[in-house]
Parts: sequence; C-alpha cells; structure tokens
Amino acid sequence: MHKAIGVIDSGVGGLTVAQELMRQLPKERLIYLGDTQRCPYGPRSSTEVKKFTWEMVDFLLEKDIKMLIIACNTATAFTLHELKEKLSIPVIGVIEPGARAAINETVNSHIGVIGTEGTIQSHAYVKALQEINPDLHIQSQACPSFVPMVEQGCLSGKQVEEVVQNALLPMKGEMDTLILGCTHYPLIKNTIQRVMGNQVAIISSSEETAREASTILGFHHLLYKGEETPVHQFYSTGRIEVIAKITEGIFKEYVEHFDSVTIENAILRSLESK
Amino acid sequence: MHKAIGVIDSGVGGLTVAQELMRQLPKERLIYLGDTQRCPYGPRSSTEVKKFTWEMVDFLLEKDIKMLIIACNTATAFTLHELKEKLSIPVIGVIEPGARAAINETVNSHIGVIGTEGTIQSHAYVKALQEINPDLHIQSQACPSFVPMVEQGCLSGKQVEEVVQNALLPMKGEMDTLILGCTHYPLIKNTIQRVMGNQVAIISSSEETAREASTILGFHHLLYKGEETPVHQFYSTGRIEVIAKITEGIFKEYVEHFDSVTIENAILRSLESK
Repeated sequence: MHKAIGVIDSGVGGLTVAQELMRQLPKERLIYLGDTQRCPYGPRSSTEVKKFTWEMVDFLLEKDIKMLIIACNTATAFTLHELKEKLSIPVIGVIEPGARAAINETVNSHIGVIGTEGTIQSHAYVKALQEINPDLHIQSQACPSFVPMVEQGCLSGKQVEEVVQNALLPMKGEMDTLILGCTHYPLIKNTIQRVMGNQVAIISSSEETAREASTILGFHHLLYKGEETPVHQFYSTGRIEVIAKITEGIFKEYVEHFDSVTIENAILRSLESK
Repeated sequence: MHKAIGVIDSGVGGLTVAQELMRQLPKERLIYLGDTQRCPYGPRSSTEVKKFTWEMVDFLLEKDIKMLIIACNTATAFTLHELKEKLSIPVIGVIEPGARAAINETVNSHIGVIGTEGTIQSHAYVKALQEINPDLHIQSQACPSFVPMVEQGCLSGKQVEEVVQNALLPMKGEMDTLILGCTHYPLIKNTIQRVMGNQVAIISSSEETAREASTILGFHHLLYKGEETPVHQFYSTGRIEVIAKITEGIFKEYVEHFDSVTIENAILRSLESK
C-alpha cells in the first residue's frame, strides 16, 4: 500500500480537511485521527495541547505517513513550529493557508478571523497575516460556543442560527473577507454566510489547507502516481459514532470513497499504557 | 538589499504574475525580465524555448535571487522539470498552480484550458490535471491570436471582443471552469469572462502562481521579515515602451509601488556577447 497523508484533529473538525483532500487529491490515501475523547482543545493550556498533539503525531508516524496535516487551528497555533522542526516529513498547519487565501481574496484589506479561544488568544492569524502584509486591518473574535455544538452533530436549524447570530452580528462592519479559523466551522458555513451576508467572502481554512497540501506534495514530488484506489482509515480516541455520523453527512457526495472508508474505533496505544 | 524573487517571461504576460506578487506579497522585492525582443514563445520549438529560457535564468541568477518564477506557460511546459532539477533555489512554474486551482474550483469536473500553441501541444495542463484527478473532463484549445494582440498593448475594445469571440464561442459547453493557460490572458480577462458568461469560473494562472509562491516561500522560511520597502526592477531584452505602458496600466492601483519601480531597458549580457 502506498504512503498516506496523516491528518490529526481535536475531534471531527478535521474531517472538513479530509473531505477537501479527497476532493482535491482523489488518488491520495488518508489516515485520520480525531481526539474526540479530549475535545475541545480551544480552552486548554498550551502545554496540554502540545502533549496531546505529540501523542497523536506519534500514533500516525508509526503508520509511516508521507505528510502530516495538523487539521486543528488550536494545535497548529501551539505546535506547528516545533513539529516542522522535528519531523523529517512535510508538516502543514491550517493557519497560514487560510491567511494566504484571505490576502488573495480581500479587496479592501479588512479581514475578519473567528476561532476558538486558544487560537484567537495565540494571535496566530494576526501574526500570519501581518507577517505577509503589515497594512491589513484585522478584526478577530473567539466563538467558544461553536465547537461543542458541532461536536454534538448539531449542524443546522434554529439553534445554530441563533448561536451564530449572537456571535457574529456584532462583528459585521467593514470586513469583506472572513476566515473560518477553526476546522469545525465549515460544517456550519451556510449559516455563517447567511448571517454575514453575501458581500463577505468566507474563507474555509480546510479547503485552503487541502490546496496547499497539493502544492507542497507536488513541489516535493510526493504525489501518488500509481493506479490503486485509496482506502482511507479513520481513527478516534473516543466514541466513533459522531465521526461516523458527520463522515456520512459530509462525504455523501463522494460515495465511491465512503464505500472504501474503514472506520475503526481505535484507542491510542500511548493512551492505553496510562 | 534583501534577496529578490526573480520572474521571467517571454514578454509582458508575466507582468500579471508580478502584479499579483506585489498584491499578495507586498514586502517582497521583484526582479522581472521580459524577453520582448523574441516574443512570442508559443510557436517556437522546444529547443529554442529552452535556450532562451536558460539565457534569462542565467541573467537573474547573477542577481542572487531567492526564488525563480517561470511566468510563461510555454517556458514552464518545456523547462520547469529541468530547472527544478538543476537550480538550488525553489523554482515555480505557472501550470501546476492553475491546474490545482481549477481542481479546487470545478463542481462538475469539466475544465477548459486555453493557451499558446506550444503550451496546448505540450499537453502540460492535461498531464498536470490528470495526474491529480484522472476522472476530469478536459477541453483544451490554442488561441494563437491573443498574445500578439496583447503585446501590441491592445487590451480592450471592439477588436479584442471579436478576436476573443471567434476563438472561444465554439468552446462553450459543459465546462464550469476555464484556465487562462497563458499569463498574457489575464490582461483581457474581462472580455474572456463576458464571452464565456458568468457561469464559468475563470482561473488566472498568474493569481494562483503568486499564491503558490507565497506558500512555498512560507513553507521554506524564505519570506522577507524586515522593514525595507521593496524597490522592484524591470528589465526587457527589447523596447521597454510596451512593458512601461502595460506596467502603468496594471499597476495603477498600487501607486505606492509604481513610484518605487525602476524600469531599465537592459540588454541581456548573454545576448550582447553574440
């Protein structure tokens, strides 16, 4: 079997990155690990997020992956630099791709960012954006209510509409581009777009991360060139039901892929030993 | 002075890549070389295109650039592989970025590609697209009349409308995404969009190449982190007037940059010695 792209997330949010990888790189094989048992990462300390992320990375490294995608904004904010330095395979986070796409998209240089408390407090997006263009106007806001709602599989309807309105209506203003700085948020993108209005371009860090994974794999001659149909593997540290439910929901248009998806309720070996 | 990004093109088309680099990476310094004297490359043999491209590359390498962008589709089709192999700095062509963006954009998997005879006959786009997704439907067509028109500075009006209609109307059909597989074409993008209709997404290989240059520079820690305002340099192998005219036209919204642009009518040293 050819080498896979490893994807880690605090829970189900990274599935939106997995979905985009399947769409934009349909020949590539994925191994996904969601730390659903310890989700959300947003309110956790940097030390805890680093420890959990390394446990997930060790699990995937044993499976001989060719690239690691940190499909969680909080984990990217706290560990990307360290992981890039220590691993010999390319490592991609979800923050810089969203930042670059927003810079490409904005016309009036007013960019909004929403994410978890951890991501927003880390100022990772502000840094990534201003490192490239110091003249941008950036407005950022934590939306702590979104992830727990999505992890419960609650993706549309009146409750979602209300939660999103309460969080985002006060933000509306000059921005013409809003970065969904959390991979859970694309699962409620339609509601976010409706609340912000069509004049605001919504940037999904998931879609952009898949695009950059494609760029980096291509640049380093790591794209899979064979003919094998990929068989993806999905692991969870906790109950697999939510991953299964969301997977069925978001992958339904890729039925041929969903057929070949192996969902296993794997307990991390590193956790077992505790 | 900090190291620049080198950009080469057969003429003025690469200016659309330069424009996007300035917009998406406003802190980076550019050195541009357009081979206006020997433009167009489209109808030339692979041997000739390779020879001319290497002459331009040698000129820029002497200026100690940190990245090379081959901002010409024909030159990319014939030389990217070789240049990536032989140079120690990152080399980016314009074909793969456009291909990846089209794969990201298309909903119905029907993609169109237009370019010069050289680019289309090289099948470089078809290869780049199908290497990533073999199930795409791709329709490609050479538009040999576009480059000479643009090189004359003819960018809008009745003549352009007629030429574009004659070339593209027969192509209209199932495609939902059209790649402008020549960096000259973004200069007549409005006309192309009008002829194809709003239901077709137009992918500018220039915009996407700048986006990927940003990705690769970021990934390799090569982004400029200092505070110096960049002073760009533009060189031409022939008459500078067309480059000056187009530059004034397309850079007008970046007045602060245009102020600091140095346009020099440089004759390639490697050409002088002949």
